Amino acid sequence: MRLLVIGGDAGGMSAASTVKRAMGDDIDVVVLERGEFTSYSACGIPYWIGGVVPSRDDLIARSPEEHRRRGIDVRLGVEATSIDLDARHVATRDQGDFAYDRLLIATGAEPIRPSLPGIDAEGVLGVQSLGDGQAVLDAMRTEPRHVVVVGSGYIGLEMAEACVQRGLDVTVIEQAPAPMPLLAPELGEHIASAMRGLGITFIGDSPATAFETHEGRVTAVHTDDGRYPADLVLLGMGVRARSELGARAGLKTGDGDGLLIDDFARAEGRDDVWAAGDCVATYDRLTGGNIHLPLGTHANKQGQVAGKAIVDSLAGRQPTDVFPGVLRTAITKICDVEIGLTGLDEDSASGAGFDPVVASVDSTTIAGYFPGAEQLTIRVVADRASRRLLGGQIIGGTGSAWRIDTLAMALWNEMTVDDLAMTDLAYAPPFSSVWDPVQVAARAAIRQLPA
Amino acid sequence: MRLLVIGGDAGGMSAASTVKRAMGDDIDVVVLERGEFTSYSACGIPYWIGGVVPSRDDLIARSPEEHRRRGIDVRLGVEATSIDLDARHVATRDQGDFAYDRLLIATGAEPIRPSLPGIDAEGVLGVQSLGDGQAVLDAMRTEPRHVVVVGSGYIGLEMAEACVQRGLDVTVIEQAPAPMPLLAPELGEHIASAMRGLGITFIGDSPATAFETHEGRVTAVHTDDGRYPADLVLLGMGVRARSELGARAGLKTGDGDGLLIDDFARAEGRDDVWAAGDCVATYDRLTGGNIHLPLGTHANKQGQVAGKAIVDSLAGRQPTDVFPGVLRTAITKICDVEIGLTGLDEDSASGAGFDPVVASVDSTTIAGYFPGAEQLTIRVVADRASRRLLGGQIIGGTGSAWRIDTLAMALWNEMTVDDLAMTDLAYAPPFSSVWDPVQVAARAAIRQLPA
Repeated sequence: MRLLVIGGDAGGMSAASTVKRAMGDDIDVVVLERGEFTSYSACGIPYWIGGVVPSRDDLIARSPEEHRRRGIDVRLGVEATSIDLDARHVATRDQGDFAYDRLLIATGAEPIRPSLPGIDAEGVLGVQSLGDGQAVLDAMRTEPRHVVVVGSGYIGLEMAEACVQRGLDVTVIEQAPAPMPLLAPELGEHIASAMRGLGITFIGDSPATAFETHEGRVTAVHTDDGRYPADLVLLGMGVRARSELGARAGLKTGDGDGLLIDDFARAEGRDDVWAAGDCVATYDRLTGGNIHLPLGTHANKQGQVAGKAIVDSLAGRQPTDVFPGVLRTAITKICDVEIGLTGLDEDSASGAGFDPVVASVDSTTIAGYFPGAEQLTIRVVADRASRRLLGGQIIGGTGSAWRIDTLAMALWNEMTVDDLAMTDLAYAPPFSSVWDPVQVAARAAIRQLPA
Repeated sequence: MRLLVIGGDAGGMSAASTVKRAMGDDIDVVVLERGEFTSYSACGIPYWIGGVVPSRDDLIARSPEEHRRRGIDVRLGVEATSIDLDARHVATRDQGDFAYDRLLIATGAEPIRPSLPGIDAEGVLGVQSLGDGQAVLDAMRTEPRHVVVVGSGYIGLEMAEACVQRGLDVTVIEQAPAPMPLLAPELGEHIASAMRGLGITFIGDSPATAFETHEGRVTAVHTDDGRYPADLVLLGMGVRARSELGARAGLKTGDGDGLLIDDFARAEGRDDVWAAGDCVATYDRLTGGNIHLPLGTHANKQGQVAGKAIVDSLAGRQPTDVFPGVLRTAITKICDVEIGLTGLDEDSASGAGFDPVVASVDSTTIAGYFPGAEQLTIRVVADRASRRLLGGQIIGGTGSAWRIDTLAMALWNEMTVDDLAMTDLAYAPPFSSVWDPVQVAARAAIRQLPA
């Protein structure tokens, strides 16, 4: 009996480990990984490149050798090229075919590379896998001076700061007016200010139009209005699911090209194929639709759910453990500015059929009179009719962003802003104000709602 | 039309402000405060005494004068001595009678002073009101050298640290074996260790038996096994509701002598009397009983709910805004050890009819490989049959305790540990591990539960 796993990072290895732990010698677990690493923290890559985390090995939670010691047959450098769902086998590049009884696809995601002149030049790099990170560090050994980061989402911002930490001159160009377009523009301005503080040049309203090259190497990034010299270009324009393998075999895809899965991480319409991690589009609890949300936290949970479902399937049982979907919760920081987001903004709320009301409040991370109190801003979106909280954004100094989890818990449980305002949250002056800032925000939303 | 409020701190002034803001000149709001302060942060007192917060005024959110400017008639130094519920008037000590149409009782709490020999000696002080805090600071001007803190709950621990910050020699005696008896003993050991690091002597298993005095001043604290010299004794043995005034008038009391209130903060059985803050016993969402839980966060919320209900009552409407009860959430720190609690422990869970299962995990405040990661321990209690989370305790380094709010939100919404383990919480290496520690704890609980 064989479980074949394609992809050896969070989603794939969580599933492989779950199945191996449950079934031991009763199952042959084979993992095909086209790269050379397993189970690493992709989210940690910018910190490794910036030198905050000293070594690549720090990011590796479990190496191929450690997985092998646990009985998982990890094959490195093996790239799957096609899946035959009827015959239940996977073909690889130069490494033969692998038959399977159950298949898990965990092929991850890849940086979006827009079709612009020069995009394939040397020195234009995306940052998604540990191998990508290594390529950036290798490029830095050639002593670049000017880095242009294209796009200012999480990865773009984190990479911009990492490059500053490496002593490089950094320009970030972004098609939206303010950094981090997922944030409300007035919050994005705080980030622009933090970037200036770090010495990063931010150019908003400026989509990249071309990459200028010389002898195959990038030399500058062009926008409609400007030319930004660059020895190194980092792409921070988001990622798309690496789902071609599954899609070519006939599996269905959704948002961001992600493979569609059911509650048990089973590929839609199949009872012997699962998918997990950055290659899937998953259930969006707020809109009811599917969303491609490539984050390690979801990959680990989906991998575990898939693993349990595979064990159930092999035992002839119906699966019980559900992956219950996502809220779009995210957190990051640039310099000392912390940023947290969860749920919907006005546009996505309107798009999902809600009637959004917005409230924004300024407060402090701890009691305002306590030494070390820092400013924060919380912006919440609620639905006018149901009074449900729909989303929240937090930006502020150190100690701000963790409160996004309180908002996420409120969203998860479909709480009204009225209920949130009265929740028994922790209070002591070194930790909070007597009305927690999320409750101050909830009260501000209540004032916008019909009495 | 007159609202009479007895007590000018959080509960009383929140209600007074809510009513005045809603009704303006249509209502006469009179507040009788026996002390000289209004609307202050009692929880901040230890930090003022320790010198962390420079001035008493920093703790005052709104002074009597500021309230008066908003149209509230604040009378300082007026002590209510009896309430005639039928005649609707309140008698005071030497200041005449006050008639009312609606009454709010917000008389607060007072430190428990056990009936031990010498308890009334000079230099044996409780710390609850701003006046109490001033008395402690005044006592410190006499240059005491040895302070004994009796009891090691929040206030005891916070005062012990404050005294160290003032350069005093501090001993804490506690009847339980480990500090902070609300914590599981193995977690309490972490606090004992932090106390030692600060130079505080902790003596467990040692209830105070007597206070030795000389010429009316305290000179030592006795236990069965020892004698601890003291120029100053601080009582940290908890507080009880200051509810005699209401009780003597015929209002019902519950846990900790707290006045019993309904969902709208109305005194049980009355339609013209409300009560809020440290003088009430409130709804315990986990046990279904009532609990005396004197914390500013509840006082503010109850005061607001009472204020709205009073406005509704005067308008002839049924009240709508509910105070939905408490979870026992609390947070504090001693030295750099952070402590958070919420919900039930095994004993209280068993007492409430649950069948508790306990799981404890060690994790890190942020990704383990990230600089600045600190250790934390999370202990959760779940119900075997329903799989509901029932409570949690967190102890650890800086950045640990805020996660108690995630657990509180789970309790508030009666989530199972299974659901908690799959929630979409924020993840990025500078903020969390890929499985948030509360989810690691939830998974550990799941392993203890029937499959």
